[in-house]
Amino acid sequence: MIAAPTASTPGRTAARTVGIVGAGQLARMTHRAAIDLGVDVLVLAATGDDAAVRGGARHIMGSHTDLDDLRGLAARCDVVTFDHEHVPPEHIRALEADGVAVRPGSRAALAAQDKLHARRLLGEELGLPVPPFAPVATTADVERFAAEQGWPVVLKARSGGYDGRGVQIVHDPDAAAAVLGAGGDWLAEAFVALDLEVAVLVARRPSGEAVVYPLCETVQQEGMCRELCVPAPLGAAQAAQAEAMALAIAAAIDAVGILAVELFVSGGRLLVNELALRPHNSGHWTIEGAVTSQFENHLRAVLDLPLGDPATVAPAVAMVNVVGPPGGGDPADRLAAALAIRGAHVHLYGKEARPGRKLGHVTALAPTLEGALQVARGAAQELMSG
Amino acid sequence: MIAAPTASTPGRTAARTVGIVGAGQLARMTHRAAIDLGVDVLVLAATGDDAAVRGGARHIMGSHTDLDDLRGLAARCDVVTFDHEHVPPEHIRALEADGVAVRPGSRAALAAQDKLHARRLLGEELGLPVPPFAPVATTADVERFAAEQGWPVVLKARSGGYDGRGVQIVHDPDAAAAVLGAGGDWLAEAFVALDLEVAVLVARRPSGEAVVYPLCETVQQEGMCRELCVPAPLGAAQAAQAEAMALAIAAAIDAVGILAVELFVSGGRLLVNELALRPHNSGHWTIEGAVTSQFENHLRAVLDLPLGDPATVAPAVAMVNVVGPPGGGDPADRLAAALAIRGAHVHLYGKEARPGRKLGHVTALAPTLEGALQVARGAAQELMSG
Repeated sequence: MIAAPTASTPGRTAARTVGIVGAGQLARMTHRAAIDLGVDVLVLAATGDDAAVRGGARHIMGSHTDLDDLRGLAARCDVVTFDHEHVPPEHIRALEADGVAVRPGSRAALAAQDKLHARRLLGEELGLPVPPFAPVATTADVERFAAEQGWPVVLKARSGGYDGRGVQIVHDPDAAAAVLGAGGDWLAEAFVALDLEVAVLVARRPSGEAVVYPLCETVQQEGMCRELCVPAPLGAAQAAQAEAMALAIAAAIDAVGILAVELFVSGGRLLVNELALRPHNSGHWTIEGAVTSQFENHLRAVLDLPLGDPATVAPAVAMVNVVGPPGGGDPADRLAAALAIRGAHVHLYGKEARPGRKLGHVTALAPTLEGALQVARGAAQELMSG
Repeated sequence: MIAAPTASTPGRTAARTVGIVGAGQLARMTHRAAIDLGVDVLVLAATGDDAAVRGGARHIMGSHTDLDDLRGLAARCDVVTFDHEHVPPEHIRALEADGVAVRPGSRAALAAQDKLHARRLLGEELGLPVPPFAPVATTADVERFAAEQGWPVVLKARSGGYDGRGVQIVHDPDAAAAVLGAGGDWLAEAFVALDLEVAVLVARRPSGEAVVYPLCETVQQEGMCRELCVPAPLGAAQAAQAEAMALAIAAAIDAVGILAVELFVSGGRLLVNELALRPHNSGHWTIEGAVTSQFENHLRAVLDLPLGDPATVAPAVAMVNVVGPPGGGDPADRLAAALAIRGAHVHLYGKEARPGRKLGHVTALAPTLEGALQVARGAAQELMSG
């Protein structure tokens, strides 16, 4: 689905070096897309062993929490974007005050950085369906919330969480007290019985042109995405509703680049869960499964270039994440076994293997979702069998 | 078409760092494929501005004609392969004598390095159809050849030519004398009236497992490939014949990695023209157009990993090369215009623009070849309009 026609007049490329704060696998795969376009990427890396650095991205060393390091990156780039949402909001605003083209900008970025801000924006300002929520500072606050919404209560760190970190399900006041007692700002949410979880990706450029990728089912385990299925098992009307919500959010927050909108389907009804303003795990299927990958469209968007077609190229696409096996084995040592499975597109991130760490993913395309899942799971299981 | 089942037993990855002699666009695109597999690439680069270096490939500086530089590369890698065929054969043999895993090996590489050797091997040893040929040292030799085969005569440098360099069509003895007088070893070939030109790519691993890509039509201008069309306009029987020839050649010379076989179709008959033992321009369509790209299969093959599916993913695939326009414009400055053409997969190599230099390519997939060509040509023309 194309949200808007290309409004811009094609012309000379204004910007050519894209700075990325962070050097994980998202930056690595963005670098890979930049090779195609002849665009240069420069990443701000914490260590020389980061996934993007190991993948050959040009880098400078530094911390995403150090404003001088961020300024050093910005000075060498035409535009600055992100591999994660952990850059302090005041630093993003400082870069903007310096005149740096930061994409997404501070206002948009805040929607992924501050969960309370996001809930209020989505639920109160935009009137979108979200789970019932309230800021909580004390155990009494949680008890009041539970009196209305019932136990268990989901406690979420207001910022800093990812892959299930910063999310706690508490069944009683003692458990709530233990979570709050550890410090930090928390948000209570009603525990929602899930039919399934889905995600929609939008790519949007500064001019407002936006494209939306087909809805994808995300299968989570312990808060971490494990599998993606396209198409998601929702009716066309509900899929269109999710896509429209994502486009509305992108426009409302003036997102630039990729916006990932994660949604719950509960009792047959869509609820907006979380936002991410960067390439996202829920879009890894697009590398082989869409005409234009999320990584290429992120680059196009932040460079204000015409966006590419987000349509799928096969009836069904499945992606399975590769995480470090409990025994400590390294999936890279099992590459031959995985590649022997015909049709498996193997991606390894060059990261040191640790149990439970995301180390890669496998994508497969097929006439049916069952077929695609069988191939992708087969290869991922080989990689994780060490 | 799959030539042979996977014969190997999947197991641990024996080799992980692939050394590539040469750092042009073929090495750049091989590096891009290595990012997916989590494999490291190290290129031997002549300048820090080479396409693969600009694409982020790790590199050491050196010359492909300096044995010490080649040994320096080999010492840092598990396997050595090539971006071109200009490494002196004696250096390849010296590396083999050192115990280096050189893939392809010296015997196979010679088939792409020495055109007289290749003609004799193909025509006399393998009994494949080739254009009439003879080695020529003097103008009298050329006249004798022309007395049998007629004028004009095609004179080809025995080694070192590419993209039309080293090929001269001469119409009389004076023209022949001028070519031979410039020095070097030459080969005379009958001038063949062409219906069309086609190419077949084989990927083959040391174990003998091989896969063959669908036949592709190559449209040449002044000896340089300009467009590719898949499927090629040949009947199924003749396409199968070309694929069988390519597999037979790969087995006969013990090719490892990609083998590209270029063929003439003349009077409805196939004639084997040239061989290349590396990823090849005629396979650029495979990045988006095949399940597994030639670059990924080259890596898999030289690492002795199971090969990927070479099948096409669309009914028709077209590729158009982007060469520096006569006015000296840089296609990178026209990126926005090209990306505005929906469905165009733009590849720019990061090379300095010069008139006539290969700077990139555009691929498009469509239900019909006409549709694919329209998109790919449209975007390529935008890039070359500066």
